[in-house]
Amino acid sequence: MSPGPTPIPPEVSAAGALPIIHHRTPEFGEVFTRVNENLKRVFLTENDIFTYAASGTGAFEGAIQNLFSPGDKVLVVNNGNFGNRWVKMSRAFGLEAIELKYDWGVKADNDEIADTLAREPGIKAAVCVLSETSTGTVNDIEGFARATEDVVTIIDAVSGIGACPLRTDEWGVDVVVAGSQKALMTPPGLGFVSVSERAMRMHEESRMPRFYFDWTAAKKAYAKTPPQTPWTPAVSIIIQLDIALQQLLAEGLEEVFQRHILLGRASRAGIKGMGLKLFGPDEDLNSAVTAAWVPDGMDSKALVRLMFREHGIQVAGGQGPMEGRIFRIGHCGYFDSYDIIATIAAAELALESLDYPIELGNGVGAAQRVFSKSGVTA
Amino acid sequence: MSPGPTPIPPEVSAAGALPIIHHRTPEFGEVFTRVNENLKRVFLTENDIFTYAASGTGAFEGAIQNLFSPGDKVLVVNNGNFGNRWVKMSRAFGLEAIELKYDWGVKADNDEIADTLAREPGIKAAVCVLSETSTGTVNDIEGFARATEDVVTIIDAVSGIGACPLRTDEWGVDVVVAGSQKALMTPPGLGFVSVSERAMRMHEESRMPRFYFDWTAAKKAYAKTPPQTPWTPAVSIIIQLDIALQQLLAEGLEEVFQRHILLGRASRAGIKGMGLKLFGPDEDLNSAVTAAWVPDGMDSKALVRLMFREHGIQVAGGQGPMEGRIFRIGHCGYFDSYDIIATIAAAELALESLDYPIELGNGVGAAQRVFSKSGVTA
Repeated sequence: MSPGPTPIPPEVSAAGALPIIHHRTPEFGEVFTRVNENLKRVFLTENDIFTYAASGTGAFEGAIQNLFSPGDKVLVVNNGNFGNRWVKMSRAFGLEAIELKYDWGVKADNDEIADTLAREPGIKAAVCVLSETSTGTVNDIEGFARATEDVVTIIDAVSGIGACPLRTDEWGVDVVVAGSQKALMTPPGLGFVSVSERAMRMHEESRMPRFYFDWTAAKKAYAKTPPQTPWTPAVSIIIQLDIALQQLLAEGLEEVFQRHILLGRASRAGIKGMGLKLFGPDEDLNSAVTAAWVPDGMDSKALVRLMFREHGIQVAGGQGPMEGRIFRIGHCGYFDSYDIIATIAAAELALESLDYPIELGNGVGAAQRVFSKSGVTA
Repeated sequence: MSPGPTPIPPEVSAAGALPIIHHRTPEFGEVFTRVNENLKRVFLTENDIFTYAASGTGAFEGAIQNLFSPGDKVLVVNNGNFGNRWVKMSRAFGLEAIELKYDWGVKADNDEIADTLAREPGIKAAVCVLSETSTGTVNDIEGFARATEDVVTIIDAVSGIGACPLRTDEWGVDVVVAGSQKALMTPPGLGFVSVSERAMRMHEESRMPRFYFDWTAAKKAYAKTPPQTPWTPAVSIIIQLDIALQQLLAEGLEEVFQRHILLGRASRAGIKGMGLKLFGPDEDLNSAVTAAWVPDGMDSKALVRLMFREHGIQVAGGQGPMEGRIFRIGHCGYFDSYDIIATIAAAELALESLDYPIELGNGVGAAQRVFSKSGVTA
């Protein structure tokens, strides 16, 4: 129940034990062609999606190298650990990052973003995180894309894609960066980037040194039949992703979104039911991670440790300024209602051991009522 | 029998089906600590070795980003497809690459390299490929490191490490770049770099933009107990690598080198026995890949296709200028004598189908005699 890497379905695990096939064979070509088509269905885009042997951070670095030239101005929303990482990364590559900072757990203000773009001349692109794993807060990307429609938009969807609705083409998002290890139910090791035509035009003018993540090299290799990657791909993880994407699409993408919304709703009800305070907004947008304050005077590291050691359930503590103060329940990916019920039950039992006054079952009951009302019990 | 990704042992395959564990758990910490120690045993170094979710090309790009500043002078040996890639990559990052070009299949001339360094002032580092997968030719790295001892040495050992002796510390090699998918008997998706103290000092002065592959970030994360990676690692492949390294060290690193030398010797004897000409030097150094000319007028693509379709044995054709002219038998990693015998037998049968005058068994017999003489029959 940590926010990634997340558990993977047994069929996806099993595929990890298949013999390694060579990446230039027709056999792998068939898998890779299907993976590319299914990724587009999940990213809700007709744009090219390039797959890298890399974590999401690598694919993100690639977006910066491929779009910008040193000194370019970029607007970066920072309302958590990952927004903060993109600010640092932009500056590491010599960009002038206009940082819009919000407290952790506070959503980005799209009106302020539009105002900033109107006021600051020369901004070439705008970056926002979909689901801030560090806080559970999901930004309103539909509104963000509208507010920034005059520039290229870059969305970090590493922990959001496949859990939180992200309608890439409908909303006009140019670049989406993602990773394999969260709601895509696949081991870590693959990074993705989808690139619109407008972003590809911006890329053509970029003068940042690059090689491994170069979009021109990727585009050329993908144009072959069957499509290829310019360098050796992570064959076994791509074969696992193929199974995971088929499972996800068999459930139905909209159904997957609805399941995540329900898991988030039940988690929040459970947290409130046991008398704790939510961290971040209490809204359906937050469908990937639920974060909560621990009671005053308690260290969330103790709670996380106890839940793992005594109950075998791994949740996450806080990062950065929230270390020790909040805990986070990840529910993006291969999770169902009973995962949430077990997690809330374990949190109740662990809080009781830590002498927090609690009526066992209040949190669990609140979560159960969400599932009961929705008619979903698995 | 292609030069990578190569087959992996069944135990390593099976480990790919284990449940994903979180990369911040003590459980993963134990695996990762052991992997780091065993990598040092295989790289024959006390230096730090950083593991990336990336292919070898990514780790190589990282070496360039971490060592140099734009405009720096670097000497690059180019005697094949990969040497050529490092020239291109150095130039993509704004380095002044002094290219020492040799015909494909010709070993780098270490005297000429020493002369060039003496003549050209200001060269900061020198790059050479250990085993040039595109030709089978292995460069004399001991001599290269001696010839370039005044500058930082960077060795591409992607297809060589664990197959061809590379005595990193003994020979004074500063930076070794490698990948998981060849003689390390692990799926593709991990890149490695070992970094000497001298290279780390050069890194401290480098002003190249970088983030994902940043050595300072890696060093900081590795200094924790247990060691960590700065970004999400490719957990499942690292767990597989752990098994593969244990197998390799159980066989014994020197024994592994000897096995590869023998496989190369038998492959070369088989090639000559069937009346074909070797591509590249006929010497024990070439222990990872054996390359051979096809008979005049034959397209090696036809031979490769026939061997795969009719005999189920995958060898590789030529790359770049050697396309259609040579074929390559990879024997780096999980291979034994009967893999070589089967490959030579299949080549003989395929050549016969292609109307090449051949006495079946001549090549196989020559290979068998190598194994018989050595006392190794498995």
